Amino acid sequence: MTYTIEEIARALGFEVQGDAALTVSRAAEPGSAGPDDLALAMSPRYAEELGKGNARAAMVWPDADWQAMGLKAVILAPRPRMAMSGLTRMMDRGQGQSTGIHPSAVIDPSAELGEGVSVGPLAVISAGARIGAGSVIGPHCFIGWDVVLGENAVLREMVSIGARVRIGDRFMAQPGARIGNDGFSYVTPEVSGAENVRKTMGDQGDAKAQSWVRIHSLGAVRIGDDVEVGANATIDNGTIRDTVIGDGCKLDNLVHVGHNVRTGRDCLFAGQTGISGSVEIGNNVVLGGQTGVVDNIFIGDGAISAGGTKILSNVPAGRVLMGYPGVKMETQTEIYKAQRRLPRLMKDIAALKKAVSKLGVSE
Amino acid sequence: MTYTIEEIARALGFEVQGDAALTVSRAAEPGSAGPDDLALAMSPRYAEELGKGNARAAMVWPDADWQAMGLKAVILAPRPRMAMSGLTRMMDRGQGQSTGIHPSAVIDPSAELGEGVSVGPLAVISAGARIGAGSVIGPHCFIGWDVVLGENAVLREMVSIGARVRIGDRFMAQPGARIGNDGFSYVTPEVSGAENVRKTMGDQGDAKAQSWVRIHSLGAVRIGDDVEVGANATIDNGTIRDTVIGDGCKLDNLVHVGHNVRTGRDCLFAGQTGISGSVEIGNNVVLGGQTGVVDNIFIGDGAISAGGTKILSNVPAGRVLMGYPGVKMETQTEIYKAQRRLPRLMKDIAALKKAVSKLGVSE
Amino acid sequence: MTYTIEEIARALGFEVQGDAALTVSRAAEPGSAGPDDLALAMSPRYAEELGKGNARAAMVWPDADWQAMGLKAVILAPRPRMAMSGLTRMMDRGQGQSTGIHPSAVIDPSAELGEGVSVGPLAVISAGARIGAGSVIGPHCFIGWDVVLGENAVLREMVSIGARVRIGDRFMAQPGARIGNDGFSYVTPEVSGAENVRKTMGDQGDAKAQSWVRIHSLGAVRIGDDVEVGANATIDNGTIRDTVIGDGCKLDNLVHVGHNVRTGRDCLFAGQTGISGSVEIGNNVVLGGQTGVVDNIFIGDGAISAGGTKILSNVPAGRVLMGYPGVKMETQTEIYKAQRRLPRLMKDIAALKKAVSKLGVSE
Repeated sequence: MTYTIEEIARALGFEVQGDAALTVSRAAEPGSAGPDDLALAMSPRYAEELGKGNARAAMVWPDADWQAMGLKAVILAPRPRMAMSGLTRMMDRGQGQSTGIHPSAVIDPSAELGEGVSVGPLAVISAGARIGAGSVIGPHCFIGWDVVLGENAVLREMVSIGARVRIGDRFMAQPGARIGNDGFSYVTPEVSGAENVRKTMGDQGDAKAQSWVRIHSLGAVRIGDDVEVGANATIDNGTIRDTVIGDGCKLDNLVHVGHNVRTGRDCLFAGQTGISGSVEIGNNVVLGGQTGVVDNIFIGDGAISAGGTKILSNVPAGRVLMGYPGVKMETQTEIYKAQRRLPRLMKDIAALKKAVSKLGVSE
Repeated sequence: MTYTIEEIARALGFEVQGDAALTVSRAAEPGSAGPDDLALAMSPRYAEELGKGNARAAMVWPDADWQAMGLKAVILAPRPRMAMSGLTRMMDRGQGQSTGIHPSAVIDPSAELGEGVSVGPLAVISAGARIGAGSVIGPHCFIGWDVVLGENAVLREMVSIGARVRIGDRFMAQPGARIGNDGFSYVTPEVSGAENVRKTMGDQGDAKAQSWVRIHSLGAVRIGDDVEVGANATIDNGTIRDTVIGDGCKLDNLVHVGHNVRTGRDCLFAGQTGISGSVEIGNNVVLGGQTGVVDNIFIGDGAISAGGTKILSNVPAGRVLMGYPGVKMETQTEIYKAQRRLPRLMKDIAALKKAVSKLGVSE
Repeated sequence: MTYTIEEIARALGFEVQGDAALTVSRAAEPGSAGPDDLALAMSPRYAEELGKGNARAAMVWPDADWQAMGLKAVILAPRPRMAMSGLTRMMDRGQGQSTGIHPSAVIDPSAELGEGVSVGPLAVISAGARIGAGSVIGPHCFIGWDVVLGENAVLREMVSIGARVRIGDRFMAQPGARIGNDGFSYVTPEVSGAENVRKTMGDQGDAKAQSWVRIHSLGAVRIGDDVEVGANATIDNGTIRDTVIGDGCKLDNLVHVGHNVRTGRDCLFAGQTGISGSVEIGNNVVLGGQTGVVDNIFIGDGAISAGGTKILSNVPAGRVLMGYPGVKMETQTEIYKAQRRLPRLMKDIAALKKAVSKLGVSE
């Protein structure tokens, strides 16, 4: 597919300078861009690489001296990453799934498919499921009993959605995402060592060894509009009520959301983050990769964690956390600095003790 | 489905007070319970929410003043979570899979299916596999060559079980669980830097860069009775003998169990826990979410780790661990407290040094 | 299958002593080896267990006194793990997939399959895909649009490879591996709190709450020769160019590789390691289990991280890291030791302060 610079700029709402009729067929990094590519050189650092490539057109920052860079046409992008969003949406060639229902798909007669739904090869749609208009169900997907999925969803291959899960519009799921798994919830007939440890912060007491008895999940998962779930991520059913993911939330690959968790809107959980059962999360919470959240706490609106943070207690709104256990990022930075000086500190203290003892004062 | 309060109480072995003939159709949280729900109000904290809902019946703690709560019938539950177990098992509507063999399933003629086995759409059962009576093989499941699966298993969708894996009775696997993957085991022709680092705790020596050569897995996985494996969890084959998971073990979502690991009975591994190769684990070991266990160590009976713990050395029976590296929870709590005071401590020591130097004593 | 000791030794290039015509049918650990097994007793510690079993033949270290161990034939292995590689490759019975194309597979007519390609039941191969000679596509696999996969690949069950991914020869993928997922990349219309936090190391500034806008992935994934990807691991597409995995890299189960990551050759990433977007990794880098790598940094050739390390800044070549944040392993070991003494240190300092104050010196 080919675009004029004019077409791209108009679609993104940006200004063109130079030859607006010049055509490009794809986006490229400046150093590897050819004459038919649109080089992405939205900062001086990237623009330096233009000399290694052969770009004639580029997307640049507003006051860039593009003629000096040897370009013939440019699009001026005021906020580079926002420009990337529009441009990549426009140029996305997708996964190439055919429209319509693939003959190998297994669709229960009681399932209702909206207008223009496409279903890939070997997908399974169970009894009572309802799929909104325009949704794309990828190859090998499984849609469970009585699932409700909104309009314009895009499910990549091998996504599974368990019974009674309800999902809003424009849902997007990467390969192997698992929605609606049974919650991980067990109990022992008598009080267990693990229960005692929670109360005492370390003491198992005299609890005896016992087998685990299962608590079944009667709830399912309820997901809002505009949610995206990453590859092989998992979201478990609630115990009595549904686990809830709010509008606009984005979950990365291998993220785990336990039973009964409830999130607000526009949260972002990066890769391999794990959220234990019954955590309440506000709006616009951002958790860095490999963040862990202990069960039964709350995280206030707009809280942010750095990658690897282990959150072990309630987090007030707006707090920025880091470390294990997670504390304020500024505090943690101070702690890290101090830790590195610890071995030296040890020596200082030994020396001080010696000096003070020389003074003949009993400590 | 509808139940009388009498029926539920009798099934759980609990006492009824009030109108035992009153019927309910589902369980609900007190604040959202309607007149046909059984509200779960097993502690005063939950009972407070009853006023927001319209429950007529509830499960409450033994000496609750239920008439004052406006209820007409109650079931008295001495240990709330145990009551949850029985009640949720009774009310679980399941995933709605039809009984029998779905015509789209691909079953090798040499596979043996016990009485009442049901196989979901597009499942594959390979040559020589044996499935015990009453087991449910979910949609898109894969059962490998010569696999033995016991009675009354429940496999949710897209579970895979590799060749020669043997599993006991009442096995439960969540979507995307992977049993019997090849172990992750490589060697370099000459000693590698990583091998030297292990010995020296940090020095690569003069090892040269080399490519990795694969060690194949000749063993498989052997799993006891009453085991549950979470969504997208992975259990690898052993190298020479089988990897072993004991009776009654419960593995949460995205848990990883490496090759040659051997666990005792009734262990519980929470979400995203990772166990490296050749670890020996006792009975009733509980690992909190995102626990990591280094290879070739042992963990004694009844040991417990808090979420996020990295276990880098042998753990005696009954030990409760926390932190990276994992140490006794009490010790770790002391360390955390001290860490937070570290920046201030630095200042104290600087001041002390100054004061002592003023005294004219050489440190 | 049965092998003479002679056959095995010749295949591995090792010396035989004793009865070279003796036959064995499998490898076994010394303590459980029967008369038809080859016991693996390559170190004195393992050889001790021979007495518990009934082995007649064993693989032992070069100067082992094997007659004294009651053996009739031995193979002398100079580097035990290398010997394991050859032996296990020889004895691997595989997963038992039939050759040829299973009739239930769904293969687009425009896909090109090389000579001897085998395709398992219910696999899907999309339009324009090209599969090299001798490759094995497992049951329930999905090969996307225009994918290029080299010769002699082995894909276990339920592997998915997205559109336009290109992979070299001898690729191996464990069950549920996901290659070519959309990258996790979002932007807010105006500067977000998370962006401010990165710049200020902790301060969100006055950024307001906003919804996330998606950046699509125009790139795919390019993988070299001799790469292995673990069960349920995920590798995301690049944004503009491809994500790149170099020749000979080995990724363990549940590893996550973000968009735009580029690795050199012969890297090894252990279980549950997570690499954020746009990280540049050299050759022969070894990351221990549950390592986390922050985005947009580089890791030099031959760097090594211990399990659980969180890498938050650039890593020079050859560096050995440990901890959160990852620092030199020697330094971290010192820090750990000092941490354990922290609670005592606190008391020492309090005592010193008191002593100095007694001296009447203003600190």
